[in-house]
Amino acid sequence: MRRAKVGGILFWSLENIRYLCGFTGGDGVLIAAGQERTFMSDSRYKEQARQETRDATFRKYTRKEEGVARFIQSLRVKRLGFESAAIPYESYRKLKEKLSRVSLVPLTGEIARLRIRKEPEELENIRRAIQIASQSFSDTLGRFKPGVRERVVAEWLEWRMRRRGGERTSFDTIVASGPRAALPHGLASEKRMQEKETVVVDFGVRFKGYCSDETKTLVLGEPETKQKKIYEIVRRAQDRAMRAIRPGVNVRQIDAAAREVIARAGYGKFFGHGTGHGVGLAVHEEPTISPRGRGFVEEGMVFTVEPGIYLPGWGGVRLEDMVLVTARGCEVLTVLSKDLKENIYAR
Amino acid sequence: MRRAKVGGILFWSLENIRYLCGFTGGDGVLIAAGQERTFMSDSRYKEQARQETRDATFRKYTRKEEGVARFIQSLRVKRLGFESAAIPYESYRKLKEKLSRVSLVPLTGEIARLRIRKEPEELENIRRAIQIASQSFSDTLGRFKPGVRERVVAEWLEWRMRRRGGERTSFDTIVASGPRAALPHGLASEKRMQEKETVVVDFGVRFKGYCSDETKTLVLGEPETKQKKIYEIVRRAQDRAMRAIRPGVNVRQIDAAAREVIARAGYGKFFGHGTGHGVGLAVHEEPTISPRGRGFVEEGMVFTVEPGIYLPGWGGVRLEDMVLVTARGCEVLTVLSKDLKENIYAR
Repeated sequence: MRRAKVGGILFWSLENIRYLCGFTGGDGVLIAAGQERTFMSDSRYKEQARQETRDATFRKYTRKEEGVARFIQSLRVKRLGFESAAIPYESYRKLKEKLSRVSLVPLTGEIARLRIRKEPEELENIRRAIQIASQSFSDTLGRFKPGVRERVVAEWLEWRMRRRGGERTSFDTIVASGPRAALPHGLASEKRMQEKETVVVDFGVRFKGYCSDETKTLVLGEPETKQKKIYEIVRRAQDRAMRAIRPGVNVRQIDAAAREVIARAGYGKFFGHGTGHGVGLAVHEEPTISPRGRGFVEEGMVFTVEPGIYLPGWGGVRLEDMVLVTARGCEVLTVLSKDLKENIYAR
Repeated sequence: MRRAKVGGILFWSLENIRYLCGFTGGDGVLIAAGQERTFMSDSRYKEQARQETRDATFRKYTRKEEGVARFIQSLRVKRLGFESAAIPYESYRKLKEKLSRVSLVPLTGEIARLRIRKEPEELENIRRAIQIASQSFSDTLGRFKPGVRERVVAEWLEWRMRRRGGERTSFDTIVASGPRAALPHGLASEKRMQEKETVVVDFGVRFKGYCSDETKTLVLGEPETKQKKIYEIVRRAQDRAMRAIRPGVNVRQIDAAAREVIARAGYGKFFGHGTGHGVGLAVHEEPTISPRGRGFVEEGMVFTVEPGIYLPGWGGVRLEDMVLVTARGCEVLTVLSKDLKENIYAR
């Protein structure tokens, strides 16, 4: 942290605010200066802040930037770090205008890594989110069959996750069958699933703010040669990436391990996204496991391993699990099987 | 629009991108320069962009700011407007660094007002979202009774909205009963609703991206004098605000109409939020109907009218409807009754 060089830090993202002071509401900022932490929000959240926040004093603002600037002025800090990846340019500009004598220092990497190693309590919430999602997927199994609309299975899955105690989905549920599976982000549509199609299902739920994220690829019927082949390449890529995980390894090596399997099989250009991403209070957070990722794996990180192959016109396969980095390797947190034989839904 | 003064505009918010070129995915930018529109995103969205975007050419980037900057350079514009309320400071900084010869012009008000008047097709989607939400609420009526947890009714309501064709909730559903109703944003909790409590239910759903947003306040049992009194003040405030709506009126007058009723009744300091907000592709957009709102009402605007009174320790009442501004006044789009007698759930 460049914290030593600044007199305080202005946090803007709701995830960091929740992480640092416990506030779960929808708007506010947190200012840390010296030993003091001040959470600021508008009157709608006064009562909630009183109930939820710990280690922070509440102050109300009416107009956000104006109130925040006024409070910062009262702190008399010369250099103030701020969460530059989260604050909109317009809010920065308004603050800057009112804080002509304060030097505003953009902080990115330091803040992005703030939540990168998970505490035991965080892990418990993540495990619980995964459990809710897995059980809900199992509840929904019977609905994955030819003739059923993608949207309908997504609805059932989401409903089960909610009923089992999930707060809300981590992201819009993806159910992409047949040729639609070539869309890495094919949200559940009105399309009906067909016999023999592959179906990519990417789903997650939140528990106490913490996300799960998992992708299964199903085959509706006995898989054909090409389906088997593509599936097994992706499975092998995922396996190789997982084996590459241990503290001290560069994140790019993990990505490379998966990418190499797919490239050697001749499908390199059909794997267009990164191999994984951190998961916590945000469904996408640090570390970034991709050819452009930076940094080294550390014990306590939680991230996804999710290689895929997408063939326009044909379809696609993606397999995604969440892992926890341990002292010597990783523990797979997700529980649903990614073996092909467990994902054939033939009647 | 200050567009005449700039050689192009960089749009960053997904709502504006969807509005202008139809792309519904999760990441990208839109650049309008002269007659040309270019939608840029990463490889994950290539196929989706091909299927969805209209009046725009697709270009892929690998690293977002780098790719966007390179393309902007190729346009040779001297002054480029950008969506300063949406772009994070960090992305602005990266673009600025690479575009030393382009003058970047922050645009706020002009862009905020871009979607302020709704087109017929947009209205149709809004009406449909409202219909889904209303019918779903009716489906859930039987569950609002003493002993049931707030979370459980929220789950049922959300499930019904999804089943009836909603894409997802417009925001996390609020179910706040008894003293919790004093929280303007009291998300559904594990609390069980009790006989004689008031229950504030604020809910909404999306259809083709467009949001509904509505709040009902129920009383579980025959209302007591104070419940009746507070409810009727809020109802009158809402009614007065609605009567104040017509093209040409300053938005502050609408807020003042509601606020005056509540203040005269002696509860002015217990109505801490604005009277309303625009609703469309975003659940909170322009116009802002509050003491700090700016601008005048125009035909075709859609916004909420939602006064409330929140008494710490006792509870609260909020009534929220969506209205469409017509040539001479407004049409109430929401359909569920806000009359007290229709909201008493006595057995």
